[in-house]
Amino acid sequence: MPIHDPVVLSLSRERFGATYRLRADSAADAMARAREICLEQTVEFPDALLPNARIRDGIVGTVAELAPAGDGAWDATIRYPVEAAGGELTQLLNVLFGNISLQAGVRLLDFELPASLLRPFHGPRFGIAGLRKRLGVHDRPLLCTALKPMGLSPAALAELAYGLALGGIDLIKDDHGLADQPFCPFEERVARCAEAVARANRETGERCLYLPNVTAPADRIQQRARRARELGAGGLLFCPGLAGLDALRALADDPALDLPILGHPAFIGGLAVGPDAGLSHRVLYGRLHRLAGADAAIFPHSGGRFAYSEAECRDIVTGCTDAMGKLAPIFPVPAGGMRLARVAELRAFYGVDVMLLIGGDLHALEPGEDLVRRCRRFRALAADVADPR
Amino acid sequence: MPIHDPVVLSLSRERFGATYRLRADSAADAMARAREICLEQTVEFPDALLPNARIRDGIVGTVAELAPAGDGAWDATIRYPVEAAGGELTQLLNVLFGNISLQAGVRLLDFELPASLLRPFHGPRFGIAGLRKRLGVHDRPLLCTALKPMGLSPAALAELAYGLALGGIDLIKDDHGLADQPFCPFEERVARCAEAVARANRETGERCLYLPNVTAPADRIQQRARRARELGAGGLLFCPGLAGLDALRALADDPALDLPILGHPAFIGGLAVGPDAGLSHRVLYGRLHRLAGADAAIFPHSGGRFAYSEAECRDIVTGCTDAMGKLAPIFPVPAGGMRLARVAELRAFYGVDVMLLIGGDLHALEPGEDLVRRCRRFRALAADVADPR
Repeated sequence: MPIHDPVVLSLSRERFGATYRLRADSAADAMARAREICLEQTVEFPDALLPNARIRDGIVGTVAELAPAGDGAWDATIRYPVEAAGGELTQLLNVLFGNISLQAGVRLLDFELPASLLRPFHGPRFGIAGLRKRLGVHDRPLLCTALKPMGLSPAALAELAYGLALGGIDLIKDDHGLADQPFCPFEERVARCAEAVARANRETGERCLYLPNVTAPADRIQQRARRARELGAGGLLFCPGLAGLDALRALADDPALDLPILGHPAFIGGLAVGPDAGLSHRVLYGRLHRLAGADAAIFPHSGGRFAYSEAECRDIVTGCTDAMGKLAPIFPVPAGGMRLARVAELRAFYGVDVMLLIGGDLHALEPGEDLVRRCRRFRALAADVADPR
Repeated sequence: MPIHDPVVLSLSRERFGATYRLRADSAADAMARAREICLEQTVEFPDALLPNARIRDGIVGTVAELAPAGDGAWDATIRYPVEAAGGELTQLLNVLFGNISLQAGVRLLDFELPASLLRPFHGPRFGIAGLRKRLGVHDRPLLCTALKPMGLSPAALAELAYGLALGGIDLIKDDHGLADQPFCPFEERVARCAEAVARANRETGERCLYLPNVTAPADRIQQRARRARELGAGGLLFCPGLAGLDALRALADDPALDLPILGHPAFIGGLAVGPDAGLSHRVLYGRLHRLAGADAAIFPHSGGRFAYSEAECRDIVTGCTDAMGKLAPIFPVPAGGMRLARVAELRAFYGVDVMLLIGGDLHALEPGEDLVRRCRRFRALAADVADPR
C-alpha cells in the first residue's frame, strides 16, 4: 500500500540556501552526506519510499554547490523550498539545523533568505542607525555596562546606575543574572534604576538608557517588558538562549513596546561550540539575532574569560552588519572580561560601529579615581580623545 | 567609592548542587576553574571587588567537592543559593550553565534540587504511570510513530494515521517538520488526523493518541495547543530546542490542557555535543525535560542515523527515571532511524518502560505486507509475543 495523496502538491519553487561545513573522507562521501541532509532536514524519510515525485522534486533539499574547504572538510550549499519554513522562525530554524544539530561533523556556516521568506520578519526595530539616533551619538563606539553584582538591593543598584549614567555610559543593562529574586524584585529594581538614570540624564543633558533584564518564564516575558517600559526603561536585555529566539522575535514585534533590545548569550554558547558542529558564530550572533530583532548582540571577545578567536569575532561582525535583505545592521557587543586597558585595541579591531561592554573593570578603581571619573575615562578612550582627568 | 548597600542581604542559606566535569592540568588548576565558575555563574564580578561579605558568603557558589575523573578531568560539585534561581526555570538554567555555556572544557553532568526549589515546578502531568493509565497499556513498551513525509496533504496524513492506529500504534505524532505550512495547514491537519485516529479507535476499541506538533512562534503556542485539544488531539509534540524549555513548561502547566507532551530534540542537539562542553545527555534529555514537564523525551538511539553511544543513552534513562524529588519519571524514547529488526535489541537494552519510535521503516513494506500488518508486527516484536501474521 504505497501512500496515495488525493491532493496535488503545489509550490512556488522558490528556494532559500544554507551552507554547511561537512567533515568527510572524500568528495563522494561529502556529497553523500549533503544528500542525507537534504532528506533529513525536510521529509526525514527514505528517498526510495517517498510517495511521489512532487515531494521528491518540490520538498527535498537540493545540493546546489559542493566545494573542498581543506583539511578533510567540504562546504555544501543546500537549497530548501521557502514553503518548508512556513513563515515561522521556529520552523525556519528547524529546516536549517533541527535534526542535524544532533550530528557531529556538520556545521551551519551561513544562510540566505529571499525577500519572500523575509516578508513576515521585521528584524531589528532600531539597528545601528536607529540606536545612534535615539542616543544622539554618531561618531564614537557606544558604551555599555552592567548593574552588578547579584546580591545588591534595588537601592544599591540604582545608586550605581546613577553614577554610571553621570559618568557618560550610554546603555546600562541589568546583569543577566538579575531576574525577579526575593532579594532584588523586578518591579522595585526597574522603578528605582530607571528613576536614577532619568535623574542623571537631567543633570548631564544626555540620553543614557537603562535596560532591565526581561528574560523570564514564557508566560511572563511580555508582561515584564511592558511593565519595564511603563516604569521608564529605555531598552530591554534578553537572553534568547534561556527563553527562545522566537520569544525575542515576539518582543521585538510587540507594538506596545518601542525599545531597543540587547541580546545576551547566556546558555546559547553550546550551539556554537564548533568547529565541526553547531552553528557558526556568524549565524548564531549575527544572522539569528538580527532575524529575531535584536538591535545589538553580546558575545565574548577573544582574550577575555572566554575562548573565541579573533576570526570568530570577525565572523560575528559580518553576520551583524553585512547585507541581509531588508534587515538593518546591528551592533556587535564584544564583552566577557573586557578592561579599560583594551579599549584602544577593541576600537582598532571593530572600528567605530561597536558597542563596548565593560563590567567588573569599571569598579577596579585606581588611586584617586571614583566610579564617575572611571566611566569618563572609558568614554575618552572609546572616543579616542584626551582623558578628561 | 566602594559600593555601599543600605539594605542588608537576607537569605535562607539553603543551596542546590550542580556537578561539572572540568578539563584541567592539575588538581590545583581544577580547583581554580571551579572557583571561577562559582563567581561566573552568580555575581559575575571579581572576587576582590565584591561589595560586602554577605554577598561573598551568601550569593557566590561554593565548591563542595572536587574529585579526579581520570584522563585530565575533574568532577566539581558546586552549591548555589536557592534564591539565585528566583523560582524560575529560565533563571535556574542561567545559574546552572548560562555564561559557562560559552566556555570549552566544562560540562554540566548533573544537578540536584531541594524541595524548596522544586516547589514552583509541577513537572510531567502524566509521566510513565499516567501515560500508561491513559492508554490502558501496562505490560509492554509503548509504540510511537510519526506522520510523514512533509509534502503530504492533511487528507493523506489522516489516511496514514488511520492505518497506523488500526495497526495498534499507541501514539501517532506529527513529524516535527509539520508546522503550519500552506501545503499542510495546522487546523486542517489536526482536525482530519484526530478524526481518523478516533475512527480507528472506535473500530479497534483501543486508545491510540494523536499528537500534533505545536512548536510554533512564541505568541501562538498556547493558542495552537488549545485548538489542538478542541479538535481532538490526544497529546502534543513540542521541540524545546526550537521554542524554549520554559515554553514547554508553560504548556505543561496550562490548566486548559490535559494532554501528555512528547519532547523532540530538534535544534537542541548542539547543547550535548560534549564530551568536554555543554550539557550531559542525562541533564538535557532527562532532568530538563522532566523539570519542564515533558512526559517523554525523544533522542537518537545509538547505531541509527546519529552518533550517541550506548553509555549516553543509559545516561538519558537515568535522567528520565531516577529519583528527582516530587517529579514523576518519564519515558525515554529512543529514535533516529530505528528499524523493526532492532526492536528486540531495544527491548533488551531499555526494558519495558520505554516508548519505541519507528518512522520510515514502518513504510518499508515487505512482500505481501501492508501498513496495518507491519504495525501489528512492530507491536508483536515490542510485546515479545508471536507475530500475528
